[in-house]
Amino acid sequence: MSKKYVYEFGGGKADGKATMKELLGGKGANLAEMASLGIPVPPGFTIPTEVCNYYYRHDKSYPAELEDEVRQAMERVESMVNAKFGDPANPLLVSVRSGARSSMPGMMETVLNIGLNEKTIEGLIQKTGNERFAYDAYRRLIMMYSDVVMEKAAGIEPQEGKGVRMQLEHEMEKMKKSRGIVNDTELSAADLKELTRIFKTKVKQILGKAFPDDPYEQLWGGIGAVFQSWNGKRAVSYRRIEGIPDVWGTAVNVQAMVFGNMGNNSATGVAFTRNPATGEDVFYGEWLVNAQGEDVVAGLRTPNPLNIRNKTEDTRHLESLEEAMPELYRELSKIRANLEKHYTDMQDIEFTIQEGRLWMLQTRIGKRNGTAAVKMAVEMAKEGLIDEATAVLRVRPSQLDELLHDMLDPVAEQKAGAIAKGLPAGPGGATGQVVFTADDAEKWAKEGKKVILVRNETSPEDVHGMHIAEAILTSKGGMTSHAALVARGWGKCCIVGCSALEIDMNKRLMNVNGRIIKEGDWISLNGTEGRVYLGKISTIRPDLEANKEYIQLMQWADRYRKLGVRTNADRPQDAAQARAFGAEGIGLTRTEHMFFGPERIMAMREMIIAENEEDRRKAVMKLLPFQREDFIGILETMHDLPVTIRLLDPPLHEFVNLNKQQAKELAKQLDISVQKLKARIDSLHELNPMLGHRGCRLGIAYPEITEMQARAIFEAAAELTKKGVKVSPEVMVPLVGTATEFEHQEKIIRRMADEVMAEQGIKFDYLVGTMIEVPRAALTADEIAKTAEFFSFGTNDLTQTTFGFSRDDIGGFLPSYIEQKILPEDPFQSLDETGVGQLVEMGTRRGRSTRPKLKVGICGEHGGDPRSIDLCHRVGMDYVSCSPFRVPIARLASAHAALKNK
Amino acid sequence: MSKKYVYEFGGGKADGKATMKELLGGKGANLAEMASLGIPVPPGFTIPTEVCNYYYRHDKSYPAELEDEVRQAMERVESMVNAKFGDPANPLLVSVRSGARSSMPGMMETVLNIGLNEKTIEGLIQKTGNERFAYDAYRRLIMMYSDVVMEKAAGIEPQEGKGVRMQLEHEMEKMKKSRGIVNDTELSAADLKELTRIFKTKVKQILGKAFPDDPYEQLWGGIGAVFQSWNGKRAVSYRRIEGIPDVWGTAVNVQAMVFGNMGNNSATGVAFTRNPATGEDVFYGEWLVNAQGEDVVAGLRTPNPLNIRNKTEDTRHLESLEEAMPELYRELSKIRANLEKHYTDMQDIEFTIQEGRLWMLQTRIGKRNGTAAVKMAVEMAKEGLIDEATAVLRVRPSQLDELLHDMLDPVAEQKAGAIAKGLPAGPGGATGQVVFTADDAEKWAKEGKKVILVRNETSPEDVHGMHIAEAILTSKGGMTSHAALVARGWGKCCIVGCSALEIDMNKRLMNVNGRIIKEGDWISLNGTEGRVYLGKISTIRPDLEANKEYIQLMQWADRYRKLGVRTNADRPQDAAQARAFGAEGIGLTRTEHMFFGPERIMAMREMIIAENEEDRRKAVMKLLPFQREDFIGILETMHDLPVTIRLLDPPLHEFVNLNKQQAKELAKQLDISVQKLKARIDSLHELNPMLGHRGCRLGIAYPEITEMQARAIFEAAAELTKKGVKVSPEVMVPLVGTATEFEHQEKIIRRMADEVMAEQGIKFDYLVGTMIEVPRAALTADEIAKTAEFFSFGTNDLTQTTFGFSRDDIGGFLPSYIEQKILPEDPFQSLDETGVGQLVEMGTRRGRSTRPKLKVGICGEHGGDPRSIDLCHRVGMDYVSCSPFRVPIARLASAHAALKNK
Repeated sequence: MSKKYVYEFGGGKADGKATMKELLGGKGANLAEMASLGIPVPPGFTIPTEVCNYYYRHDKSYPAELEDEVRQAMERVESMVNAKFGDPANPLLVSVRSGARSSMPGMMETVLNIGLNEKTIEGLIQKTGNERFAYDAYRRLIMMYSDVVMEKAAGIEPQEGKGVRMQLEHEMEKMKKSRGIVNDTELSAADLKELTRIFKTKVKQILGKAFPDDPYEQLWGGIGAVFQSWNGKRAVSYRRIEGIPDVWGTAVNVQAMVFGNMGNNSATGVAFTRNPATGEDVFYGEWLVNAQGEDVVAGLRTPNPLNIRNKTEDTRHLESLEEAMPELYRELSKIRANLEKHYTDMQDIEFTIQEGRLWMLQTRIGKRNGTAAVKMAVEMAKEGLIDEATAVLRVRPSQLDELLHDMLDPVAEQKAGAIAKGLPAGPGGATGQVVFTADDAEKWAKEGKKVILVRNETSPEDVHGMHIAEAILTSKGGMTSHAALVARGWGKCCIVGCSALEIDMNKRLMNVNGRIIKEGDWISLNGTEGRVYLGKISTIRPDLEANKEYIQLMQWADRYRKLGVRTNADRPQDAAQARAFGAEGIGLTRTEHMFFGPERIMAMREMIIAENEEDRRKAVMKLLPFQREDFIGILETMHDLPVTIRLLDPPLHEFVNLNKQQAKELAKQLDISVQKLKARIDSLHELNPMLGHRGCRLGIAYPEITEMQARAIFEAAAELTKKGVKVSPEVMVPLVGTATEFEHQEKIIRRMADEVMAEQGIKFDYLVGTMIEVPRAALTADEIAKTAEFFSFGTNDLTQTTFGFSRDDIGGFLPSYIEQKILPEDPFQSLDETGVGQLVEMGTRRGRSTRPKLKVGICGEHGGDPRSIDLCHRVGMDYVSCSPFRVPIARLASAHAALKNK
Repeated sequence: MSKKYVYEFGGGKADGKATMKELLGGKGANLAEMASLGIPVPPGFTIPTEVCNYYYRHDKSYPAELEDEVRQAMERVESMVNAKFGDPANPLLVSVRSGARSSMPGMMETVLNIGLNEKTIEGLIQKTGNERFAYDAYRRLIMMYSDVVMEKAAGIEPQEGKGVRMQLEHEMEKMKKSRGIVNDTELSAADLKELTRIFKTKVKQILGKAFPDDPYEQLWGGIGAVFQSWNGKRAVSYRRIEGIPDVWGTAVNVQAMVFGNMGNNSATGVAFTRNPATGEDVFYGEWLVNAQGEDVVAGLRTPNPLNIRNKTEDTRHLESLEEAMPELYRELSKIRANLEKHYTDMQDIEFTIQEGRLWMLQTRIGKRNGTAAVKMAVEMAKEGLIDEATAVLRVRPSQLDELLHDMLDPVAEQKAGAIAKGLPAGPGGATGQVVFTADDAEKWAKEGKKVILVRNETSPEDVHGMHIAEAILTSKGGMTSHAALVARGWGKCCIVGCSALEIDMNKRLMNVNGRIIKEGDWISLNGTEGRVYLGKISTIRPDLEANKEYIQLMQWADRYRKLGVRTNADRPQDAAQARAFGAEGIGLTRTEHMFFGPERIMAMREMIIAENEEDRRKAVMKLLPFQREDFIGILETMHDLPVTIRLLDPPLHEFVNLNKQQAKELAKQLDISVQKLKARIDSLHELNPMLGHRGCRLGIAYPEITEMQARAIFEAAAELTKKGVKVSPEVMVPLVGTATEFEHQEKIIRRMADEVMAEQGIKFDYLVGTMIEVPRAALTADEIAKTAEFFSFGTNDLTQTTFGFSRDDIGGFLPSYIEQKILPEDPFQSLDETGVGQLVEMGTRRGRSTRPKLKVGICGEHGGDPRSIDLCHRVGMDYVSCSPFRVPIARLASAHAALKNK
C-alpha cells in the first residue's frame, strides 16, 4: 500500500493524472488531469481506492494517517478558494462523491453541501446575499445526509415507506399544501428555513440521533457513506452484471462546491464532444440556467440545447448556451477541443457556471452506440487524432450488431413498455402477427402477412416456418437451443426462454402475465435485449453498403488480424450472406439439417429402421442425389474458398420423432408392423443421447452412411471441377475420441475420393480432418494428427464434456451458479479459458507436434464471441468460424486480438 | 532385422534359448533350451517370428537368404539323425509346427510326416519293418497337407461340406464300409496303400493340382501354411480376445519326426509337473501306448494315468506309465525335476517314446486354476525354488475370484449345456428358483426358498429383492448397470445384458430362445463366465480361512504393496465383509442408496417437491436421524479406519419415479394436486441427466441437503467419539468441476462440523475433499487442492466425460468398437491409460503441486481392476477402493504393481 492517502488537485496542478484510474478512480483521475491542463476545476482531493480496500479489510476503519492528511488537504482547499470549512463568516462547502475505476452511474452515494450548519449558513447568506438559496442548500443537505449517511450507511433498515427521506419529503409536501403551492421553487426563504428546523426535529425523532452540526463530522460521515455504498445492494449487483471485481474499490472525491443555481448568471450542463448517437463531429449537449447538475439529469425541467446546431423541432424555441452566454460557450468550446485533443477520444463532460464563471466538474470517455463508434473512430483516424490501429480498437465488436440487423425504432420502443423478457438469442428488431405453428407461419406469410412464430420450443420440423417468420419467440430453451442456433445462423431476430408465456395451442392464444395475446395479434421483439412488446413498432434497416466508415474500419481490421474468419452455414443462401459479410470460407456445414425435407426424411427413416446392411445401403443411397445437390450449391457459392463439411452427427432417434399418423405411414411404406417400427424406434432411445450413439460412432457402425456422404461430396466436387469451378472441400469427421476412430472413417472417405476421381477421370483437392470436441481428442491430438489434416474445435460439445454440463439441462442450476459467482459467466457463451481453454491449447499444440502445418480452427458457438476469439488468436489457430451475421464481429474481434496481444 | 533366419537345436546344443521367445516363439525357445540342457529333443530348427513379419510385409515372400539357410539346417538335422530328406533308402521325415510368443492352442496349422512320397515310403517301410505304419503316415500326410497347405493356405474356399478334407474322409469311410469295419486301426496296410492312391487322385480332381512328391516342395508348402495361418480367421479372432498384437507373428519349427505309434514299445503323453487343478506337488499326466500325440488330445481313446498316484476311481484299472515302462518313467521324472528346477515353475510337457527311446517335444509354463496357482506359488517359495516376491507375482489377481465365491460344481456344469450367455457382472455360481419381482424374491425367500431374481433391468427400488436373492439375472444393461454395480458390491453372482431373455411379466415366464421358463423353475448361473443353465447345479463353497497358502500369499503381498486398499460400501455388513477381506478403510460410501427405505423415500420426495426453502428444509431434516443412524453403523464398523462419505450425487428425478398410486399418495400427503405434483416431476426431467443437475450442483442449489448430510455425519462422529470409538470421516463432495463449487460446499461442511463440535462439546478429526470425475476438475486440480484435503478419482464418470460415452448407452456401438479394434477394451472395465489416464496423472500431479501431502485415491469401478491398479500405483496414489469382494484382488494387484514397477 502506498504511503499517500490523499491526492490533491486544483489551481492548475494536481498530484494525480488521467492514467491513475486504478488508484484514483475515473472521476478523480480526470479531475486531476484537467487541473494539470489548466482547465478550471473546483479544487479538492481524492482519497484513493486503496483506502476502500483497507476500510473493508480493517473492520470499516481507516489508516491512522488519513485524518491528518484530509485535514491538511482541506486547509489547502480553503486557501485556494479563500474560505474556511466551518467558518461562520466565510464558509467553505464541499461535495463528497464516489469514483470507481470504471463508471458505475448512480450505483453509489453522493453528499453535497457538506459544511453547512446553523452557524455557517449565516456566512453563506451573507456571501451570496441569497437567503432562499442558502436554506434550500441546507434542507437538501439534511435530506441527503440523513438518508445516505445516517440511515443507509448505518445499515438501518426502515419499514416499507418509512425511510427517513420519504418522511422528510412528506413534511415538505405538507408544507407546500399548507402554503397552497405546487413547486418546490415556490417555497420562500422563510418556508425553507422553517423546513430545516422541522427536518432536524424529524431526523432526531426517526433515527434517534441528531443531525450533526460539526462540519468535520459531516465530512467523515460522507466519506464513510461512499465507501459503504461500494458494497450496497445496487452497486454489488451492477458489478456482477458488468463483471467488475469487488477488489477494485471506489475512491472518494472531496471537492469545493460550486453552484449553478445562484441566479440567472449561473447554469449547469452536460455535453458530449461529439454526437454519441450518430458520431457526427458536433458539440452536443444540454444545459439549464440557474440549476444544479441533478436537475439536468432528473428530467424535471426540459433542458435547453447546448448550441444552435443541437436544436430540433421540439427544442428550437429554447435558448441555447451559445446564444445565452456566448462568451462562456466559446470558453467551453475551447475546453472541448482541448479535451478531445488531449484524450484523443470523445468526452462526456459536466460543467457548472457559477455567477458567470465556468467550472468543469467531470470529463470521461463518452459512451456511444455502434454506429457512432464506427463513425467517430474512422473520422478521428482520418483527422489524425488517432492511428488506424487505435480506430480499430475503439469499436467493440459487439457494437457492430447494430449495423447488421433491423432494429426497433428506439424512440417508439422507449415509449412502449415491454410485456415480457427472455434470452436475447438472435439480435435485431422485428414486428409481426403472432402464429403458433410453423405451418400457419408459412400459410400466413404466403398471404403476404408478417408473422412472428411463437412456440414452446422449436424442432427441426419447424424450420420452414421459422425461416419465413420475421422473428421467433419461444417460452423454453437456452442460448444454444434449436431456435437460438437456427435463428443466429440466419441473423434472424429471436427471443428464447421467455418463461412468462403460457401458450394454449388449442385456443391459439397465449397468456403473458395475465394479458391474453391471440393468434394474429401484433407483437414486436427486440432480440438484442430480449424484450417483447405488444403491438406494432416500426423498424429501422441499416444500410451497410452505404456506410463508408464501416467499410473503411473493416478494411483496417482485416489488415491487422491474423485469424481467418469463416462461417457456419448449411445452405447456399446463408453462405452467400456470410461471403458478403467477408467470410473467407465455411468452417462448418452441418449435413443433418439437409435430411429434413419431406422426400429425404422418408429415406432417412427407412435407413434408420433397416434391419440389415443391404436394406440400409439401399435407403442411404436414395439420399445420395439430394446430398450431392446440396453440396453443389454450397461449394459453388463458396468457389475458390474452403468448405468444411461435417458428416452426420446427431443420434438417429432425432430423425424418427414420429406421431401416430407418421408412424403408420412409415410402417406401411416399409411394409412392417407399426409395433415392430415402434420397437425399433424404442431401441434407439438413449438415457444420455449427448453421450450416446452419434458422431463418428454412427459412421463406424454404419459405414454406408459415411460412404454415401463422402461420395456425394466428391461427386459434387468432380462436377464443379469439370465446370471450371475451383472447389476445396474439407471433410470433417465428428466426435472423434481416439485416433483409431478417425483412421477408420478417413480410410472410407479417401476410398470414396479415389473411386469418384477414377470414375470421372478428374482430380480435385480435398482434406480430411476432424472435430475436436471430447476431452480425449485433445489429450491424444498428437496421435490423431498423424492422419488428420485439420482440426476444428467443437467447443460446444467440448464445454459439455469438460464440465460435465448438458447444454439442454443447465437451466436448473446455471443461473444460480452465475448469481453465486461459482462461474463468472455462461461457459457456452464465452469459452471457459481456465478449463476448456487448456484443452484447446493442448489439442492445438499436440496436434502440431506431429503435423506442424496442421490447420486448426473453431466452429463452436464461441467462434463468434470476441473474448473467445482472443483465446483462439493466442492459441495460434488458423481461423474462427461463426454464424453469418457474426462474421463482421469476428473480423473485428480478430483484429482486436492481434492488436492487444502484440 | 537380424541377419540370421534359422535357429538350430538338437544334439545337446542350440542357437536359441528360453528367453528368446519374442524371436523364436514359446515352442522354439523352449526346444532350444531343452536341447542345451541335454534333454533329448528331436533335432530341428526354428524360423523366427521376424520372417513372419517379413512375409506379410513383402507380399508373402521370404528373405532371399532363407532358402539356403533352411537347406543347410536340414543337412545338419540329416547328419544328426543319420538319415536324408528325400532319400528313398533312409528318409528323414520332419514336422512343421507354428509357435507364437504366447501360446495359441489349436489356432494355427501343423503338418506332420513331411518328406514322405512314393519313393521314400519304401525306405520308411524298410527302416521300420512296418508297412501299415508307413502307409498310415503317408495317408495322414496327404490328408493334412491337401487340407492345410493346398486348400487353406492357397485361399481356396470350398462350398459348405465340400472341403478336400471332408471328401477324403468320405473316401476313407467308404473304404471302411466296403471292408465292413468300424475303426481306422482295422484298415490293413494294403487298404491304406490303396487309400493313398485314391487320395492323390481325389486331390488332383478337387484342387486341380497334384499332391507334390518333392520333399522340399512339401517343406516350403508347410512353412508357408504356418505363416498363412497366422492371419487365419481363428487365429485373428483368438488374438483379438486375448489381446495379442498382430505384429508379434509366429515362428515355424521344423523338427525331425519321432513316432509314438511304432508298436508297444512306443508311446506318447502329456503331463504337468504339478497338479494344475489342486496345486499339489504331484507329477500329473496321461499317456497312451502306441499312439501319436494328437490321439491323446483328440479324446478318441481314453488316456491312461501317468503314474499310480494319478489313478482315480475311473482310471484305476488302466496301466500307468510308471508301471508299464518304469525305466522310462524314471527318466521322465528326472526330466520333470530338471525342468521345474530350471524354469522354477510348473511345466506343461509333451513327450513321445519311439521304440523305447524318450523324446521331449515341448515344455512350457503350465496353465493352472486359481487355487492351484496360490498353492504352487506358496509351496515353491517355501521350497526355496522361488522367492516370495516371485510367488506373489505368480498368482494373477483375477485368479483369486475362484477362492472368494461359491462356484458351480465344474463337473456338473460341464455336463449341463448353457441355454444363454450374458455379461459376467458378478462372479461365482448360484442356483435357485426363478422369480420376476423383488417383492416375490423377498416373499419366496422368507418361505425358505432359494431364488434367482430375473428382471429386464433393476432399479434402486428392487434392492431388497436383489439382496435376498441367490443371484440376479437381467436381460438388459452393461457391466456398470445398476444390477452389476450392486451385485459386485455384495459379491453376489450376477449376469446382466442377457439379451436372449424375453420376459413376460403378466404370465410370469420368460422365453429363452424358444424355451419357456416359468416362475419357480430352477436355473443356475455361472457369473464368472456369464453362462445360464437350466435346472439345479450344485455349488462348491471355498473355505478361505482354512486356506493357509492364501493367507500366506496375502501376507507377502501386503508386505510389497505401496497402495492402500479400501472398499466401496454403503452398509455396515458390506463394510464388515470388506474389513474381513483386508480393507483398510472405506473409499466410497454412497449416501443415495440410503434414501430408498419406505420411511425415507417419502421425506426425500417431500423434499424434492417442496416449492420453497422452508418446506424443503423441513423435509430434509426428517431424514437427519436416519442418516445419522446409517453413518453410526458404518463408522463404528470401520472404527480406527478412515471412511469416505460422498454427499448426495444422483439427479433428484431418480427418487420420484412414481406409479399412479404412489403419485396419488404423495400428492395427498403433500396436500397438493396430482397435476401439480406431476408438473414438478416433469420439470425435473432432463435430456442428459448424466450431465445435468446432480452432484455438488444439488448441494449448491439446495444447501440444506449438504447441511443435513454433513450434520448427520458429524453427529454420528460425535456420538461415537463419546463412546470412545475412534472415527475418521472424510466428507466427499461429488462432481466438482471448479474450485468455487468445492469451496461453496466446503464452507457449509466445516460450518456444520464447528456447530456440532460446539453443541456437543467434543472434538473429532475429519477431512473435506472431493471426487475428481469431470475433466475440468483434473485440469484445475491445483486450484481445487488449495481447499480440498483429498481427491478421489471417480473414474466411471471421468471415463464418460473424457470419451463422451454414456455407460448406459454404449451398448449400441461398444461391441463393434472392440470387434473392429477401435478400442482395445471396454474403458469402463479397464482404465483407458492413454486418455483418461492422462487426466488421472495430471490431476494427481497438479493437486500435489499446491498440497504436497494431498491424499489421492480412486473409487471408480476401476479400483478393483488389476491393470488400472497398476496405473494408480505409477501415478503415486495413496489408495485404491473397490467393492468388498475385490479387496483381496486389489491387495494382490497392488503388490504386483509395486513389484513390476520397482
